[in-house]
Amino acid sequence: MKIVNVILSGGVGSRLWPLSRKSKPKQYIQLFDGESLFQKTVKRNKTFSDVTLVVGNKDNHQLTKNDLQQLQINNYNEIIEACPRNTSAAIAFAAFSSDAEDILFVTPSDHLISGAESYLKSVGKAIDLAKNGFLVTFGIKPTKAETGYGYIEFEGENVLNFREKPDFETASRFLDSGKFLWNSGMFCFKSGVFLNELKKFNSEIYHSTKVAFEKRKENFMPEKESMDIPSISVDYSVMEKTSKIKVVNSTFGWSDMGSFEAIYDYLISRGHSIDSSGNMLIGSEIHCEFVGLNNTICIYTPDAILFLQKENAQKVKEVFERLEREKPELTR
Amino acid sequence: MKIVNVILSGGVGSRLWPLSRKSKPKQYIQLFDGESLFQKTVKRNKTFSDVTLVVGNKDNHQLTKNDLQQLQINNYNEIIEACPRNTSAAIAFAAFSSDAEDILFVTPSDHLISGAESYLKSVGKAIDLAKNGFLVTFGIKPTKAETGYGYIEFEGENVLNFREKPDFETASRFLDSGKFLWNSGMFCFKSGVFLNELKKFNSEIYHSTKVAFEKRKENFMPEKESMDIPSISVDYSVMEKTSKIKVVNSTFGWSDMGSFEAIYDYLISRGHSIDSSGNMLIGSEIHCEFVGLNNTICIYTPDAILFLQKENAQKVKEVFERLEREKPELTR
Repeated sequence: MKIVNVILSGGVGSRLWPLSRKSKPKQYIQLFDGESLFQKTVKRNKTFSDVTLVVGNKDNHQLTKNDLQQLQINNYNEIIEACPRNTSAAIAFAAFSSDAEDILFVTPSDHLISGAESYLKSVGKAIDLAKNGFLVTFGIKPTKAETGYGYIEFEGENVLNFREKPDFETASRFLDSGKFLWNSGMFCFKSGVFLNELKKFNSEIYHSTKVAFEKRKENFMPEKESMDIPSISVDYSVMEKTSKIKVVNSTFGWSDMGSFEAIYDYLISRGHSIDSSGNMLIGSEIHCEFVGLNNTICIYTPDAILFLQKENAQKVKEVFERLEREKPELTR
Repeated sequence: MKIVNVILSGGVGSRLWPLSRKSKPKQYIQLFDGESLFQKTVKRNKTFSDVTLVVGNKDNHQLTKNDLQQLQINNYNEIIEACPRNTSAAIAFAAFSSDAEDILFVTPSDHLISGAESYLKSVGKAIDLAKNGFLVTFGIKPTKAETGYGYIEFEGENVLNFREKPDFETASRFLDSGKFLWNSGMFCFKSGVFLNELKKFNSEIYHSTKVAFEKRKENFMPEKESMDIPSISVDYSVMEKTSKIKVVNSTFGWSDMGSFEAIYDYLISRGHSIDSSGNMLIGSEIHCEFVGLNNTICIYTPDAILFLQKENAQKVKEVFERLEREKPELTR
């Protein structure tokens, strides 16, 4: 039995465009005390794990290598996907590459976490539950009525319900009730238990990932067979359906750094300068003046500038999607 | 008797920072159909004048030369001031360098004018009045309740009153009454008549500019003596006091391009792109996205970026003045 830290590194993080690009996804941007979120993830979990297994893709495995070399880590396993097929497939590949009794501790690669002791405690609990055959999700005690996250309705270690990203009113109600946790996207389970549940609730994904995995060449998943895998999140395919679900009610500091609003708060906490009206420049040392504007963020890159009213940070995704059609070279 | 187009080119145009700098004043920025406002001024008035006389300063006479060389104009006179001493001194220098019977047609170098026929007619009228010994100012029929300009209360060719930049209510009243014109800062008079009136109403400026002019070396005014000249506008020193004042009620299109709000309107009229929320990028071809913002202008230069809510365009002057103290290298 090994403990395997499965690091999901398939996303782009389009809401952080123009810092993030397809060739430089969010998790590899070294904006966090000089490190990337990917590097922080690897380091954070290394002490809990026997193996680091990165599930990335053909466009970013070189970035993974560079990031790990900087940390002087050469000893890691890798699954290189041919095309993005969401978390069900990524975790299934990780499971197929492990022994049935191995504990998979699945973490996104692009979250920021604080509170080491609290984190240690939660992971310990999750591993214990996983050893007993449960599929464990990590719920984070909410600190504000956040509309950008999914929620888990809970009672002790039991999950009553998964809830989609709510509107602000609903989020406020969730926060006040004390009965809801943020769905962190981190999981812990035995490889064999996961595959059994996947087979039971979504045999199409189970079989298509199995076929693809068996046709891999070294770490590279095959293109053709991968295209046949349904692209569905593990929340939908397994977690919301299985009766073996448990939640660890966690209190460590957590953010998915999913938008420039989160980045803005983080950078301020790290002493990044803002002007007296709360305006911030990211990505350049060039002198910047803001006149008649409040809480705006200017994100500067050599080929694109984004000028953002902070409260609209979620809309950057739409800009990215439009540019994919109109000026794809700016998204690559 | 000659007609001398006196081009006043002493200003910086700090409200157009960071495009304008001390080393690149507003009138030399080639943002207007590929020309500078200075070049347009020279070309516009060349047909009316026997002589082009530029009153600039030691920091910009090379820019003048470059601009005129581009137009293949080598035949011009020049007065090079040692330090900025406002329009009274600049015009007095021009007058001292001319014959008493010469007609000085004084124009700022940084205005944009349209309507050639109407302009021709107004200048013709002004020259006739100047020949008859009057000091002529050009009043522009207002098209909106502009608070950034001074006003002239008029009756026919007679000036009843000069009025400072009004608040919006007053400007609206001026506009509605039909009795007020914008004070364009353009003038026309005989050199000798001007000097007589200056001597009469502000003998200190008259004498100190005379002393300085007599100590000039070639076109360069002397530093020490120039410092002794009071820095006062010609409106205060002469125009508001003389009984020989006349106004030409003009209908040509006129803008002082004094702020980015005016630049914005001009550029739109010339097909410069804006996004669907009215946001504009000036100074770069870099791709720029605006999210959650309306009517903002991003002015990009290699060492400074200005982000401006258009309605606050007048406040850029304050930024310039602060930077003069805090980061003077960005204003030079």
